[in-house]
Amino acid sequence: MWYRHGSPAGGQVAPAVTDADATFKIDIHTHILPKTWPDLRERYGYGGFPQIEHRGPGCARLLRDDRPFRDIQDNCWDPLRRIEECDRDGVHVQVLSTVPMMFSYWAKPDDGLDLSRLLNDHVASVVQSHPRRFVGLGTIPMQSPDHAMKELERCVRDLGMAGVQIGTHANGHNLDDPGIVSVLECAASLDAAVFVHPWDMMGNDRMSKYWLGWLVGMPAETALAIASLLFSGALDRLKNLRICFAHGGGAFPGTIGRIEHGFRVRPDLCAVDSERSPREYLGRFYLDSLVHDQTALRHLIDLVGEEKVALGSDYPFPLGEHRPGSLIESLEGTSDGVKERLLSGTALEFLGRDRGAFGW
Amino acid sequence: MWYRHGSPAGGQVAPAVTDADATFKIDIHTHILPKTWPDLRERYGYGGFPQIEHRGPGCARLLRDDRPFRDIQDNCWDPLRRIEECDRDGVHVQVLSTVPMMFSYWAKPDDGLDLSRLLNDHVASVVQSHPRRFVGLGTIPMQSPDHAMKELERCVRDLGMAGVQIGTHANGHNLDDPGIVSVLECAASLDAAVFVHPWDMMGNDRMSKYWLGWLVGMPAETALAIASLLFSGALDRLKNLRICFAHGGGAFPGTIGRIEHGFRVRPDLCAVDSERSPREYLGRFYLDSLVHDQTALRHLIDLVGEEKVALGSDYPFPLGEHRPGSLIESLEGTSDGVKERLLSGTALEFLGRDRGAFGW
Repeated sequence: MWYRHGSPAGGQVAPAVTDADATFKIDIHTHILPKTWPDLRERYGYGGFPQIEHRGPGCARLLRDDRPFRDIQDNCWDPLRRIEECDRDGVHVQVLSTVPMMFSYWAKPDDGLDLSRLLNDHVASVVQSHPRRFVGLGTIPMQSPDHAMKELERCVRDLGMAGVQIGTHANGHNLDDPGIVSVLECAASLDAAVFVHPWDMMGNDRMSKYWLGWLVGMPAETALAIASLLFSGALDRLKNLRICFAHGGGAFPGTIGRIEHGFRVRPDLCAVDSERSPREYLGRFYLDSLVHDQTALRHLIDLVGEEKVALGSDYPFPLGEHRPGSLIESLEGTSDGVKERLLSGTALEFLGRDRGAFGW
Repeated sequence: MWYRHGSPAGGQVAPAVTDADATFKIDIHTHILPKTWPDLRERYGYGGFPQIEHRGPGCARLLRDDRPFRDIQDNCWDPLRRIEECDRDGVHVQVLSTVPMMFSYWAKPDDGLDLSRLLNDHVASVVQSHPRRFVGLGTIPMQSPDHAMKELERCVRDLGMAGVQIGTHANGHNLDDPGIVSVLECAASLDAAVFVHPWDMMGNDRMSKYWLGWLVGMPAETALAIASLLFSGALDRLKNLRICFAHGGGAFPGTIGRIEHGFRVRPDLCAVDSERSPREYLGRFYLDSLVHDQTALRHLIDLVGEEKVALGSDYPFPLGEHRPGSLIESLEGTSDGVKERLLSGTALEFLGRDRGAFGW
């Protein structure tokens, strides 16, 4: 055991303790919040925005309009706590994105831009303090493609982020929407990675029990996002776009047979914007590995190839993989080379980063 | 080649031409309509109901409030045409259920009951004419559990049906709803099979393009139905309930890892009605085989066992399996015994019928 990582550029020293034989691990799917943020109702003059209320050492509550939403711990906002847990779990780099409840795409565009800037400046500062442990993905106000592209450019050019995280839709506009496609075009032209995360789930009114919004709604959202993008044919034009879908692509991989068959038998309905079958686009987008099931993970790899599957854990939330990478490592009959690809190689390519940037 | 089936009880002779070595095939998922039905707007005094408009020999259009919904052919209503196609495709028995657009759960309960009776009398008459080729599943007015149970009883006791087809929800009430559970209890006590088919899909307003309601909405609906039922714990009480979900269980099988993990990490949200993990209920419900993908079908069999997977084709619709059973037959490395189980054995058990009833 020794220190592989040097002292980071920032003031705080938080080197990683890693085993000499450890496999480099990048977790592309983790969420972070600032420890506090302004009262957004006061700032923008209307409600509906998330609030944070610290309730004791290391614990806080997220609320919306004073209604409790979720309790969180300090690993949600404290970079050193995160690094401590990463060291414990053998994760070398976390890709930081905001918590989707912060998207607030329903807000006025100028306010969405302001909120995005606030969140992005925070993420950028965390990354700057620990550049070998964190990579940033910004959030952008998708309610207005113009505002979104402006902030996307700032994220990449000024803040040094690898790209952005966007929702599976923006106020009901799916990923085939021309405005959203223009944002994806902008990302491709900036060489920015796009991570798509479900939020504001369909069927919400029928999913108040049993955490169904998270267990059924989110996978459905992601399937809708992938299908919309593929059927739109946008990937034909966006040859260089690097786009990744959370939670192993949700319900998409398990229903590809039905989606492809639909395309084949009703081209009058499905092939209106692209003449290529959805299956032809497999390998053109990335998926994270968060499926909690060996069979499902093997299916992802069969479907899009290990070149397109990257470790993602949803840290620090309970629905995530509690020891990031353990499902990948548990795959029997999978070579070390493939596992390495899944644990970091795919992430590096998706992010457009070199392992040397992290001291590896 | 010879006639295996004798002349049916009814007037029309429509024996099946089958090969001596043919495997008995029952297709549990097929839809049928009467050739015509009354003007329901006139009958009930308000609109929103399906209409049928015959437009030429063997072709008709389904409409709702005079807006075209779908064009259909005579295999949707003509029993002899269906038998002809079954003979062509090697299908010996079709399980008949209405087209889900007929559910009309939004209608007044008395009208829903009346419409159900009308449709069920039609299905029963078709089965009566060809009892060795068809089995009936009724439709019941789920908008009112009392009305639904009344008609369920009539379907089974008076009309000789094997059970009923119900939607994945009734006016937003999922399968954990106490009223719906009471209908399932009634089915179990009557020894009636329940086939669950998606309709009135969540997120409909975001799925107008690319047939997304069918390709993404339907699988999401079925996942929601299965998850709601399992989390409700109703299966603990309904030991004898035989329930089957269409389209291979939709998005459920591919996301079982996430659903199970959710149950494990947030019992405060998920285990409020049942302390058993969703995975423990695998094998307690049936799935049809309609997944259009070998990997997905193998996954179904791994998940719930061949004892719980039954051939279902969605005949006569294009999103179905055009040669029913071909996916099952294409499975390499699967024994003839397992294939036989998938092609008819599971169906017989689900329906509560003996193969001898069909001349086998």
